[in-house]
Amino acid sequence: MKTAKKYMFNPGNVSKLSDLPTLDHELAKDPAHNKKLLAKVASEIGELQWTLYAEKKQSLLVVFQALDAAGKDGVIRHVLDEVSPQGVTTVSFKQPSSNEKERDFLWRVHLRTPARGEFTIFNRSHYEDVLVARVHELVPKAVWKKRFELINQFENLLAQECNTRVIKFYLHMSPDVQLARFKDRLTDESKNWKITEADYNEREYWDKYIEAFQETLDRTSTSHAPWFVVPADDKISRNLLVAQIIRDTLKDMNPQYPSPAADLNAVRARYHEAEIKAKATRQKKA
Amino acid sequence: MKTAKKYMFNPGNVSKLSDLPTLDHELAKDPAHNKKLLAKVASEIGELQWTLYAEKKQSLLVVFQALDAAGKDGVIRHVLDEVSPQGVTTVSFKQPSSNEKERDFLWRVHLRTPARGEFTIFNRSHYEDVLVARVHELVPKAVWKKRFELINQFENLLAQECNTRVIKFYLHMSPDVQLARFKDRLTDESKNWKITEADYNEREYWDKYIEAFQETLDRTSTSHAPWFVVPADDKISRNLLVAQIIRDTLKDMNPQYPSPAADLNAVRARYHEAEIKAKATRQKKA
Repeated sequence: MKTAKKYMFNPGNVSKLSDLPTLDHELAKDPAHNKKLLAKVASEIGELQWTLYAEKKQSLLVVFQALDAAGKDGVIRHVLDEVSPQGVTTVSFKQPSSNEKERDFLWRVHLRTPARGEFTIFNRSHYEDVLVARVHELVPKAVWKKRFELINQFENLLAQECNTRVIKFYLHMSPDVQLARFKDRLTDESKNWKITEADYNEREYWDKYIEAFQETLDRTSTSHAPWFVVPADDKISRNLLVAQIIRDTLKDMNPQYPSPAADLNAVRARYHEAEIKAKATRQKKA
Repeated sequence: MKTAKKYMFNPGNVSKLSDLPTLDHELAKDPAHNKKLLAKVASEIGELQWTLYAEKKQSLLVVFQALDAAGKDGVIRHVLDEVSPQGVTTVSFKQPSSNEKERDFLWRVHLRTPARGEFTIFNRSHYEDVLVARVHELVPKAVWKKRFELINQFENLLAQECNTRVIKFYLHMSPDVQLARFKDRLTDESKNWKITEADYNEREYWDKYIEAFQETLDRTSTSHAPWFVVPADDKISRNLLVAQIIRDTLKDMNPQYPSPAADLNAVRARYHEAEIKAKATRQKKA
C-alpha cells in the first residue's frame, strides 16, 4: 500500500491542493521503465479482478474526477486494458436527463453501483453535483452544501451492505499542461473530435473549480471511501500511479477463489469408481 | 392534521405497540357514515394528487407494512380508487431476486422512488429488511441493527433533495382478527386464492414480529418520515383513517397549479386580433 498511502488525501493533514504536485519529477524521468512496469501492474489488476469476480463477496467502485484534458479517458483506457469485460463496467455520467433531474442526485448513480464481485468505474460521478453544480450555480448553495454529508452516507451504505470499496481519483494537472493539451487537440487530427468551445469557457472557472475540489476532498475523503490526488502532468507516470493504487487496493481487499460447491473427495471417489468399472469392462472385452 | 396527529407514532412518547388500540370502538360504530365519508376523502385525495402532479415540485411516498391479512391490499384498493393513474404508482416488493440481493437493500427501493410530482405507494418496502430479515435471521444482527440508521439517512436524502414526503403506515391488528380473516379466506371462495400455508407458519412468529415492529417504529419514526399506527381490526374505519391521514398530508404539502408557461395577456391579445380578422373576412364575404 506504499503508493496508495503516499497519494491518499488525508483531510486531517489539511493538504492544500495548491501545495500538492501536478508532476512527480523523479518518477517521470524514466518513461520506458514506467511503461514496462505499467504493463506488469495492469496484468496484476486483471488477475485480482478475476478473483474478485469469482469470489462474489465484495466489490470495487473507482471514481475519476478531473478538469478537462487531465486524462480521465486515457487512464481508463491504459490502466484497465487487462481486465476481463466480465464483471467490469465503465459508466460515463453526462449531464442528467430530465427524468434523472426529477429525482435526487444519487438516484442515477445508485442504479449503476457494482453488484458483489463487480468492478465498476465511474467516469465523472455524483461529485459533479458538488463541482459543476456549484461552480455554475445550478443549485443554490444551501442545496450543494448538504450534499457532502449525503454523499458520505451513500458511500457508507455501499461499504456497510455490500463490502464495496470506493476509491476516488482526482487527476491533478497544471493550467499550462491543460493549455498544451488543448493545443495538441487542435494540431493532432486524430484528436480534433475532442475539442469543444466549452473547454476554453471552463478554463475561465479554473480557480472556482479548484476551490470546489478542495472542499470536496476535505469533506468526502473518508476512511471507507478515500480520495487520491494523482499528479497528472505526465501521462505515463499518471497511468502508472493510478494502476498501482488500484492494484494495492485490490490486494488489500484480498479476494479468494471460493471453495468448490461440490465435495471434491466425493467427486474423486466417483471418478475412481468409474475408472475401475471402465477397466473391468475393458478386461472383459479383451 | 387532526387525524394524522392522533395516530402518528412519536418515539419520544415511548408508545408500546401492545398498549395501542387495534380497534377504534367509537369510530367503528357507524360504518354507513364512515363509507360515505371515505368516498368524500378519497375524492379530495384525487383532487390534491392531480394538483401535485401538475405542480411537479414535490412528491409523496406512502409505505404500507403489516402482518398478513391486516389489509395492505384492501387499503390500497379502497383509498386510492379516485386518484389518477397518471402520476400514481404502486410497487409491491416481494422476496428480492438474486440480482437484487447482490446489492445493498436500498438499491431496488431507490430505483422506484417517486419523481417530482409523483405519488408512489410501496406495498411492503425496505422495512422488510429489518422485519422479516430479523425475525427469520436472514442476516446477522450486526447487519440489520445498522439498517435503521441507513434507512433514516436514505429517507432524509429523498426529503432534502426532492421534497419527497415519506409517510409510513403500520396496520395494527389483533391475533384474533387475523385468525378470523384466515378462516374467511377458507370459507369465501372468492378469497381462496389468498391462502398460503406460510400464513399459518408466520403466525408462530407473532411476538417476534411485534418486537421487530416496535424497534422499527422506535428508531425510524422521524419528523421527515413519520410512522402512523392505524387500528386495523375494523376494515372500514381502517380505510377511512388511512385516507384521512393521506389527505391531511397532501393538504399540508399544499400543492399549487403552476403558473402558465405562456403570457396569458399576449395570448388574449392574439385571440382578439384573430377574432377581428375573422370578423372582417366574414363582412367582406357578406
